[in-house]
Amino acid sequence: MTGVFLSFEGIDGSGKSTQARLLAEALRAQGRVVCLTREPGGSAGAEEIRRLVLEGEADRWSTETELLLFTAARRDHLEKTIRPALARDEVVISDRFADSSRIYQGLTRGDLRETVNRLHQLMIGVEPDLTVLIDIEPSMGLSRAVARAGTEMRFEGMGLGVQQKARDGFLALAAAHPARFRVIDGARAPQQVAADVLSAVLARL
Amino acid sequence: MTGVFLSFEGIDGSGKSTQARLLAEALRAQGRVVCLTREPGGSAGAEEIRRLVLEGEADRWSTETELLLFTAARRDHLEKTIRPALARDEVVISDRFADSSRIYQGLTRGDLRETVNRLHQLMIGVEPDLTVLIDIEPSMGLSRAVARAGTEMRFEGMGLGVQQKARDGFLALAAAHPARFRVIDGARAPQQVAADVLSAVLARL
Repeated sequence: MTGVFLSFEGIDGSGKSTQARLLAEALRAQGRVVCLTREPGGSAGAEEIRRLVLEGEADRWSTETELLLFTAARRDHLEKTIRPALARDEVVISDRFADSSRIYQGLTRGDLRETVNRLHQLMIGVEPDLTVLIDIEPSMGLSRAVARAGTEMRFEGMGLGVQQKARDGFLALAAAHPARFRVIDGARAPQQVAADVLSAVLARL
Repeated sequence: MTGVFLSFEGIDGSGKSTQARLLAEALRAQGRVVCLTREPGGSAGAEEIRRLVLEGEADRWSTETELLLFTAARRDHLEKTIRPALARDEVVISDRFADSSRIYQGLTRGDLRETVNRLHQLMIGVEPDLTVLIDIEPSMGLSRAVARAGTEMRFEGMGLGVQQKARDGFLALAAAHPARFRVIDGARAPQQVAADVLSAVLARL
């Protein structure tokens, strides 16, 4: 794989999707070929699995089954979208990747934390070259997310306590993998955040 | 879990589904409460995953993604159907279980054999109390399967060579786990086969 693989992570309302898009635009303006993608989803098959997981009752799948479905979607996304783009020397920008499973399945169910990592090792085995964590106070993230009428929230009904645990979890992951992560303060105007993201990414490219 | 968990395995056309049904009828006639189920599928969620895997183009999913989807379906089947039935002290009869993944994904892709086992250990971790392997010559199995007009063959286009490898694989699994497996000659009239199955199962009950 000769391209560069970047991921964005953060809690709901952190602005990571906006930042992923702004980064793609900035890199394209510099003449780079960019593959902007997202999880869960990012390939035709993975989008179908996404619908299966996110539609219907909230307790329709156990955390274990959900983890397996997200991993199946990730495997398809990796094979059909990410690896081919990297082989074409493109910059791949994925809005969420495996760290989201580490946080959302591994944190919700502390006993599954090691399982999440072992399943990733066994069936995915790839990490981004650089992960941009857009960090934000949960109260600000939640009010932003709620303001987006009609936008799908990843897990409706997640309260502030869960968002706080997710934020702490992301920050702990970043601290554990300093070579891969860049933590960017998301509590500012999007263009200010985007400038920091771009310089962090250009330093890596 | 206080019930008894039985699985049927065998190549396409071996008659295992017929035998699973005949065993259920025989045990019910003796007053046992039986939960007759199947894989892939066996619960509402698992049946949806089954449709996702088996519909569409044959090369739609890689073997790895297919394995993850089948494991997600198995996890749902285990949680929603098998464990609750065992907790009610029923006899669970599943037409296929994890051995089918060992054969169909592990054999198609020899390099995935160990992955199939590790994924099972990590996310399922349960084996049937008794597995009945209905053994048959691939040529007989294939002609039976083809004769069932409108019946879904698990993998269309599987030739005799693949069926022979699958049969050898099932027999090797049975030889490796003699306490769990009973191998029954399926090349006879269904009622004769059923009598052997019933006595093997009653010996275990």
